[in-house]
Amino acid sequence: MFNPERFRVVLVNTSHPGNIGSVARAMANMGMTNLALVDPVQFPSERANAMAAGADTILEQAQVFPELADAVIGCQRVYGVSARLRSIAWTQLDPRQLSEEIYSAPQDEQIALVFGRERSGLTNEELDICEALVHIPVDEMHRSLNLAAAVMVVLYELRMSLYDAAPNPKDIGRKNASDKASSEQLQFFFDRWDATAKSVDFYKGNAVTVMRKIRRLFYKADLTDEEVKILLGVLTALDEELDKEQ
Amino acid sequence: MFNPERFRVVLVNTSHPGNIGSVARAMANMGMTNLALVDPVQFPSERANAMAAGADTILEQAQVFPELADAVIGCQRVYGVSARLRSIAWTQLDPRQLSEEIYSAPQDEQIALVFGRERSGLTNEELDICEALVHIPVDEMHRSLNLAAAVMVVLYELRMSLYDAAPNPKDIGRKNASDKASSEQLQFFFDRWDATAKSVDFYKGNAVTVMRKIRRLFYKADLTDEEVKILLGVLTALDEELDKEQ
Repeated sequence: MFNPERFRVVLVNTSHPGNIGSVARAMANMGMTNLALVDPVQFPSERANAMAAGADTILEQAQVFPELADAVIGCQRVYGVSARLRSIAWTQLDPRQLSEEIYSAPQDEQIALVFGRERSGLTNEELDICEALVHIPVDEMHRSLNLAAAVMVVLYELRMSLYDAAPNPKDIGRKNASDKASSEQLQFFFDRWDATAKSVDFYKGNAVTVMRKIRRLFYKADLTDEEVKILLGVLTALDEELDKEQ
Repeated sequence: MFNPERFRVVLVNTSHPGNIGSVARAMANMGMTNLALVDPVQFPSERANAMAAGADTILEQAQVFPELADAVIGCQRVYGVSARLRSIAWTQLDPRQLSEEIYSAPQDEQIALVFGRERSGLTNEELDICEALVHIPVDEMHRSLNLAAAVMVVLYELRMSLYDAAPNPKDIGRKNASDKASSEQLQFFFDRWDATAKSVDFYKGNAVTVMRKIRRLFYKADLTDEEVKILLGVLTALDEELDKEQ
């Protein structure tokens, strides 16, 4: 069921403060309150307050972060929203599939919904932090979505679960959110993996592309906290053995 | 199925020309083109063109009418959209129910979607022309929806009928069944992994239990053939490095 406290709307490097205000208004319409701003070009701003149309509290309580990784700390699921269809590397969901995925997962998981820059969206490095991409099904000839419109569509889909027949949570072998690895745990694991792979000269020049495929592979596995610890244990054992020889 | 030509977006007595432009942009995003304006306060307008962000054609081809009744001539179904819950007199649908109703009706019916004034919505006389009301499920404390946001949500719902039989997102990166790793590939990978883990004394006595968890983790990832090859490549690089020291 819809619990607005689970959701964090994250805006990355927004250019126009008016758009931040419009997003706050859309959030208020859909009953959401948690807004995080990553490196906003201008904030706070009178223009943002004017566009918020009564959702000022959301702006007042918005948290500002220097980097996306900081803004998603504590979240078990991080989704990047895009109007562009990306090539292969990321799992892609439409907003309805996102909603189904979230509501069939444990209901105490914290969710970050990440929206990129007005013109250029999210960088590949920012997308690396996202376990999947949410693609809003726009007309291919007119893909330029207003930021608040994109937020509205995604939040509307999530809110509609209030009005659907309650979905039957699938048994995916996890009892509660604390079982799912957090975003920061995963990023730590990826960094460790990357360092070990480099230390044995695995990549041979394709580091970024190959590491992206490896991220995707592990995102697909929907890793638990315990599983990440096992994998980190393997890396530690490997690194200790590799260090001996130097 | 979604046929954008069946739909007419009707804006009644819109105050802000910028909102007309934003609606045109949202229509273009959702692949719709037919816009009717009833007694707009200011139109055409530079502000509308600026906000349309490339959807100028929709504005150029928009038809202007003095009264709502004129704007819906030729339509078999007229729906009024509102963020307010009205009292009893009108049938109320949420946008999803609207979509279901339209797609279970004959597919050549013309549909008008009527959006009221920014502040005061539609009058009762205007609502009399509508066979039902579409109610966007907003938070009761923040019912003031931006006009373009309301249009976006309704058109998005209608457009989603294109995607209703969407494939499982985890399958999208796979072109065909042969992309999925075969069982024997997986077993070969697990054996290699197990050998490497043992060579660095990872298990410390729990080999069977821990290896079972690792298998499960990779099964969850639904690995492709390419992904297994990447993982095998990592093991090969590790083993070569580990062998050097002996």
